Amino acid sequence: MPLTPEQQAEIDAQRATPRPTLRAVSDGMEAHLYKASEVLDHGFVRVIDYMGDDNAIVQAARVSYGAGTKHVSNDEGLIRYLMRHWHSTPFEMCEIKLHVKLPVFVARQWIRHRTANVNEYSARYSILDREFYIPQPDALAAQSTVNNQGRGEVLTGAEAERVLEILKSDAGRSYDHYEEMLSQDGQQGLARELARMNLPANIYTQWYWKVDLHNLFHFLRLRADAHAQYEIRVYADAICEMVKDWVPFAYAAFEDYRMGGVTLSSKAVDCLKRMLKGEDVTQETSGMSKGEWREFQAAIA
Amino acid sequence: MPLTPEQQAEIDAQRATPRPTLRAVSDGMEAHLYKASEVLDHGFVRVIDYMGDDNAIVQAARVSYGAGTKHVSNDEGLIRYLMRHWHSTPFEMCEIKLHVKLPVFVARQWIRHRTANVNEYSARYSILDREFYIPQPDALAAQSTVNNQGRGEVLTGAEAERVLEILKSDAGRSYDHYEEMLSQDGQQGLARELARMNLPANIYTQWYWKVDLHNLFHFLRLRADAHAQYEIRVYADAICEMVKDWVPFAYAAFEDYRMGGVTLSSKAVDCLKRMLKGEDVTQETSGMSKGEWREFQAAIA
Amino acid sequence: MPLTPEQQAEIDAQRATPRPTLRAVSDGMEAHLYKASEVLDHGFVRVIDYMGDDNAIVQAARVSYGAGTKHVSNDEGLIRYLMRHWHSTPFEMCEIKLHVKLPVFVARQWIRHRTANVNEYSARYSILDREFYIPQPDALAAQSTVNNQGRGEVLTGAEAERVLEILKSDAGRSYDHYEEMLSQDGQQGLARELARMNLPANIYTQWYWKVDLHNLFHFLRLRADAHAQYEIRVYADAICEMVKDWVPFAYAAFEDYRMGGVTLSSKAVDCLKRMLKGEDVTQETSGMSKGEWREFQAAIA
Amino acid sequence: MPLTPEQQAEIDAQRATPRPTLRAVSDGMEAHLYKASEVLDHGFVRVIDYMGDDNAIVQAARVSYGAGTKHVSNDEGLIRYLMRHWHSTPFEMCEIKLHVKLPVFVARQWIRHRTANVNEYSARYSILDREFYIPQPDALAAQSTVNNQGRGEVLTGAEAERVLEILKSDAGRSYDHYEEMLSQDGQQGLARELARMNLPANIYTQWYWKVDLHNLFHFLRLRADAHAQYEIRVYADAICEMVKDWVPFAYAAFEDYRMGGVTLSSKAVDCLKRMLKGEDVTQETSGMSKGEWREFQAAIA
Repeated sequence: MPLTPEQQAEIDAQRATPRPTLRAVSDGMEAHLYKASEVLDHGFVRVIDYMGDDNAIVQAARVSYGAGTKHVSNDEGLIRYLMRHWHSTPFEMCEIKLHVKLPVFVARQWIRHRTANVNEYSARYSILDREFYIPQPDALAAQSTVNNQGRGEVLTGAEAERVLEILKSDAGRSYDHYEEMLSQDGQQGLARELARMNLPANIYTQWYWKVDLHNLFHFLRLRADAHAQYEIRVYADAICEMVKDWVPFAYAAFEDYRMGGVTLSSKAVDCLKRMLKGEDVTQETSGMSKGEWREFQAAIA
Repeated sequence: MPLTPEQQAEIDAQRATPRPTLRAVSDGMEAHLYKASEVLDHGFVRVIDYMGDDNAIVQAARVSYGAGTKHVSNDEGLIRYLMRHWHSTPFEMCEIKLHVKLPVFVARQWIRHRTANVNEYSARYSILDREFYIPQPDALAAQSTVNNQGRGEVLTGAEAERVLEILKSDAGRSYDHYEEMLSQDGQQGLARELARMNLPANIYTQWYWKVDLHNLFHFLRLRADAHAQYEIRVYADAICEMVKDWVPFAYAAFEDYRMGGVTLSSKAVDCLKRMLKGEDVTQETSGMSKGEWREFQAAIA
Repeated sequence: MPLTPEQQAEIDAQRATPRPTLRAVSDGMEAHLYKASEVLDHGFVRVIDYMGDDNAIVQAARVSYGAGTKHVSNDEGLIRYLMRHWHSTPFEMCEIKLHVKLPVFVARQWIRHRTANVNEYSARYSILDREFYIPQPDALAAQSTVNNQGRGEVLTGAEAERVLEILKSDAGRSYDHYEEMLSQDGQQGLARELARMNLPANIYTQWYWKVDLHNLFHFLRLRADAHAQYEIRVYADAICEMVKDWVPFAYAAFEDYRMGGVTLSSKAVDCLKRMLKGEDVTQETSGMSKGEWREFQAAIA
Repeated sequence: MPLTPEQQAEIDAQRATPRPTLRAVSDGMEAHLYKASEVLDHGFVRVIDYMGDDNAIVQAARVSYGAGTKHVSNDEGLIRYLMRHWHSTPFEMCEIKLHVKLPVFVARQWIRHRTANVNEYSARYSILDREFYIPQPDALAAQSTVNNQGRGEVLTGAEAERVLEILKSDAGRSYDHYEEMLSQDGQQGLARELARMNLPANIYTQWYWKVDLHNLFHFLRLRADAHAQYEIRVYADAICEMVKDWVPFAYAAFEDYRMGGVTLSSKAVDCLKRMLKGEDVTQETSGMSKGEWREFQAAIA
């Protein structure tokens, strides 16, 4: 269970007392505020704060386009139009701040999304807790045999047991040694900023991560995708559930145009036009490489 | 007067109904929300939304530094420490969204601050209003005779009158012609995206501008500075008044360490040490150029 | 003609003396260096410096993917793969620096692309030249009757003449008054930072603009697009010609996957699958709005 | 020794054949190109490419300020002026691309500087090498007793031996297990993206890192500082040596105004003025907290 009783009590306290505000309020998001959505064996993601709602997107767009837009579209239609035409600035007018607890190797992928604000727990300054990600049996995947960057079948039997045993015992031993090196009982104690180097990448860290809705959608498109590593995808999935309740129109447009959308090259569009006219196009007559053809087939079949 | 009765009614409506929220609330900022602070002859700046308060800065810092920080410092002391040591990420955890109406030549300076989100009124899509900045007599400054990028004395008499007359009549004529070119009475009417090119840089535009507190402080340090152009400084000053009520501890630290602070070069520090030991240092013995020496004198005299 | 004899002489001097370097060199780009590609009536764009070539993109990708990639793909195939799968970081490893002379209303659109470095001519510090964009007759378009943000037919006859006459005379008068206000003959002279406010948006400015290849492609996709305003599209087109010679593989992939590519929503993909199975889908049975259906038809017809 | 014979041969090949270019060339930087500057036990930093030189900074500033600047200053004076007055955009016109091999815990600090482009070796895709950072005896520091985020004395004797023994044996065992889990001899082999989680933070990774000179100076100011962690400071120091040869005027100004510079709060400036007038100011009469006073004393004593 990721939350300590102290943490749960803190969350309850944070949720206890609503206060009046004149700002835009998203009731869907208020229901999520501070609550921890549990992810992996010790991780979580929770919303600490947010700014704006669907209407804030519409309002920002109407500053740009002036009074005219009031007549042409209802709010949902306008949001869909903005998403379809990559008008990203109105989505940047919403902001979210998350508190995330996650394994270090997941944090290393996550941080590559640079257009965000981050405050991470400092292992120079403080001591990390003894918490490591150990995969569930059904997440213990073999290397893919067709894709250098992917997973194949789930490991079973003796191999699975051996892997779990290694991960657990190495994590435990590394942490024991981390504590021993830090200890000041009868010795000086190694500097924290050095001792941390002994800890493996499945140890948990935590951070506050603040991002605007446009950049969050970009993150979710890549990380909630089927090709993303499972251990980051589960965080992206948990965030999707929150965003769906926060800005329901924008999220629906995102699902339709981004998550479920497909981008075709000019060659693929040409093939499609020929196919719609009844021609039987093959990879050989498509002008596409085998890889492109395979992806094209997967997109439209 | 910058606000139309419709706009004032809209603001009153926005302020009429507080709603409950579980988020951090800054009472100082709630008092400002939506209200227009009038700037120049037709401009304004008003807060549309905000995220966080002084406590949010402290909280973010404590995610980084762990439980230890709870004991060492009170909130104000911690915020001052963060500001003094350029720990900028906790300040990035607060966000503000402003609605600004401003002359185009001010907007062109403002937009150079790139780390912000912007939705500007589109003159491709909509028609601009007939509103131009005409300086008050006491802002009608001559070119500085010592600084290529500055102002000297205020113009008076016939010259002042002639300048004001030119600015007013050229603005009016340009706008008349803008309307004539757009008009579809008995003619096709020029495209808006072309007609706008006839309008001078003192016409007003407006935008939503969203920025985090760290980057806002950077903007304010440069634009509320005595060397900034007067016409942008008055906007920065108006924003300072809001920030002071929003995050009083952070603003006080900003005033002390940034606005009122001074950065000395290593040469200047060397001189200072010699002076504190009683030496009579001159520009010739300082190792500084004349310009540096003049600025050093101004800083410490 | 945009270039003065002095400028042409400076360009000739810059091109006169090659020097040895150990860096990656793109011969295609060396042929463009410093030369001004003329745009509109007084504008230009020219490459001042560049970093990297097609091979630099491949090299960066291979740092990420390790030795394995050496065997699987040739350079062009790898670049196409990266573009198709939105692996943008290797494209960020190339950089270009342009010198652009452009009307202010074009500069105002351009600057909205924030992920770039800019040094613009300062009208606070210096005096602008008497150069204004006056459209050619075939660029003098009427407002579109179907699209608030677009152009219709070209204006002709008396209306065209009147518009050109207005643009020319207002520009000339504004500039005359600008000079008069600045003049220090028998008067103090208005500060430059104020006098510039009288100048219309078709006056020319200039800047250095530096951007990485990924962000440049994003700019070109939006601004070389048929829906972009003509006056910025001609700059984007001129830049495309340079990029094509600089990084030919990357540019070809960009043309195929971005410029010529089409993004379909999940609804559109569903329709497509039904159509490929022989169903006669109409807007009514598509689940799409009229606007979406129209765009879908345009994409695949 | 960080470089394999193959890597050294590759560097020699990269340096073998100069090619002609019309771009700005920095001879000081050409001498560094591709060569690896060794850092820590297995790390290095080397320049892969660069754009611009001191003159490019001057040129960019002169686009902004126009012809006037040609007369007022020589190049070095202008660069010093720009640095002193925080005119950062001309420095952004230079760019550098580095290839860095570094321990993961150093990479985690480094990546917090977001305004840069990065391609990192992918441990999802490829297998990491058996290379770990093990501190030299004189870098094996105890936790500071006065600063939560710092180092104290060097460990010696049995404690030092025990720490080194732990770091070496845990790294070795973790890597053995990593290989065992990946192995496909008689088993399926765990996915690389999972196996990597067993590796400690002192394993080496590598990346290409590209940044403009302004942001590089910001990085160097923080990371070449005495308070930075030793293991990142040695990288910053190595980069300083390269930058000094690349843009000597800019680097000298950076050293004087940033590295050796001091920022004083308005309270500190007040104290200074009193002290220069002969007053004997103490912490009690300074208005500063004890921490601020201590830092102030350190700055000017």
